[in-house]
Amino acid sequence: MKILNDILAAKTTTRALERQGISVGFVPTMGALHDGHISLLKVARAVGAQRVVASVYVNPTQFDRDEDLKRYPRDLDADFAKLEAAGCDAVFVPKDELMYPCGYQTEVWVPEASRGLCGAHRPGHFVGVTTIVTKLLNIIRPSFLVMGEKDFQQLMLTRLLVSDLNLDTQVVGAPVARDDDGLALSSRNVQLSDVEREQARSIYGGLQAAQRRYYEGERSAERLVVEAKAVMSVAGLEPEYLELRSSLTLAPLNSAHQPCRLLVAAYVGSTRLIDNVVIAGDERAQTA
Amino acid sequence: MKILNDILAAKTTTRALERQGISVGFVPTMGALHDGHISLLKVARAVGAQRVVASVYVNPTQFDRDEDLKRYPRDLDADFAKLEAAGCDAVFVPKDELMYPCGYQTEVWVPEASRGLCGAHRPGHFVGVTTIVTKLLNIIRPSFLVMGEKDFQQLMLTRLLVSDLNLDTQVVGAPVARDDDGLALSSRNVQLSDVEREQARSIYGGLQAAQRRYYEGERSAERLVVEAKAVMSVAGLEPEYLELRSSLTLAPLNSAHQPCRLLVAAYVGSTRLIDNVVIAGDERAQTA
Repeated sequence: MKILNDILAAKTTTRALERQGISVGFVPTMGALHDGHISLLKVARAVGAQRVVASVYVNPTQFDRDEDLKRYPRDLDADFAKLEAAGCDAVFVPKDELMYPCGYQTEVWVPEASRGLCGAHRPGHFVGVTTIVTKLLNIIRPSFLVMGEKDFQQLMLTRLLVSDLNLDTQVVGAPVARDDDGLALSSRNVQLSDVEREQARSIYGGLQAAQRRYYEGERSAERLVVEAKAVMSVAGLEPEYLELRSSLTLAPLNSAHQPCRLLVAAYVGSTRLIDNVVIAGDERAQTA
Repeated sequence: MKILNDILAAKTTTRALERQGISVGFVPTMGALHDGHISLLKVARAVGAQRVVASVYVNPTQFDRDEDLKRYPRDLDADFAKLEAAGCDAVFVPKDELMYPCGYQTEVWVPEASRGLCGAHRPGHFVGVTTIVTKLLNIIRPSFLVMGEKDFQQLMLTRLLVSDLNLDTQVVGAPVARDDDGLALSSRNVQLSDVEREQARSIYGGLQAAQRRYYEGERSAERLVVEAKAVMSVAGLEPEYLELRSSLTLAPLNSAHQPCRLLVAAYVGSTRLIDNVVIAGDERAQTA
């Protein structure tokens, strides 16, 4: 596995593949890799990427709290070992001063879809995300960009910016990877104590309860939300948000009569976790 | 000359050149072409572009006043004839609904350098410019992007966004093209009456007066500005702004002890004209 420490090396490697007509699948990460990330590499191969490039970069501009940035888990040696074992061809690991040199100022905004959900609670987070994604796409120029559906709003924003800015990449969403107890895999899970881990299980538990109510015929967004909240409440969790949203546009919905997802963010102790499930329809078939 | 009416046609043509290793110089325009635009095509060849692609697109999002957008001169047939005669290889002429389809929302901001000068007087103008430039660069992917130094702040913003967003293009500034009477060539010049045209000559006249004072030893920004304003005032013009700015960073300067330009905008009747001259140093040598 090639380790690409600077932008020029990354461009040289990926442009050479481009010239040879070899397609690249790109998996951007913030490191602290888990099986969820590894599943993204597999999805990249599955959709046809002939080479897979990952990036490991804890992007400072998308952290709204300094404390969260400092606390974010980092383990580069382990990350490299996992990527290598998963057959990753190259990994881009830039330093902050290369990505944001002195005088840096450009920002990429996707204003409407950044409002609400995580955007309402993490000021500046999404402009940090959409800016770094644009930069990484311009550096790597992948045929496929693979991102997890766990960060569903981030995935939607990325689809929008790729389309709006006329970038030549196909955005592929990969299903949420979960632990045996249902908890969505996240680099932040290592921050949980045993008691908190127990509480955190109720996040997916609540979402599943809402899914069951939907299958039983419930269509009211309000009542599906109440159902999910009840489960989380028993575990002592009060979600930061818990909302039924269109899978296609992220618009808030009153009822589940179109493709939609139930999206949640909740603090478990001082760790913020997010998750979501499909309630109605299969938007993947429609956005493919 | 190939006429590229949609994004796919433009990408197909330019990607084919890319694969063959043929370099492309790109000249974005809003049409109503004059000799200034044609000089940009020549600069593109001169810096080494093997093919030259122009675009003609009156980008609605960079107009702060509807009236200005409606009044902006358009003459596509004449534009095609001039481009063809100048040896342009292809021209991209997209429709608004292709560039900004339903649901479009992404914006590219270069916040610091957009403040002041034209940015202070045309709200939303530069985010419109930096967004469309990013889109056009992603569609055409040129080796060289050639823009005129008349729109100096626009050129600086473009240099910044290309560097910040890691785009693979070299931004080339071309000297201001002038009519025999010194007036900077602009598509808006056709809007001037004979009397206004006479007034408009004082814009460059004033800038030249300041240049002469600099060569005589004057270094004070304030006194250089007073000198230029006096000339324009005699012709009945009151500049919207008239400022000495660093050629490298666009920062306002108190004195001309580093590479700098004197930049001006002025309404002549209802037509807004801009111009600028080098006062100190040759920043082109330094930014190349």
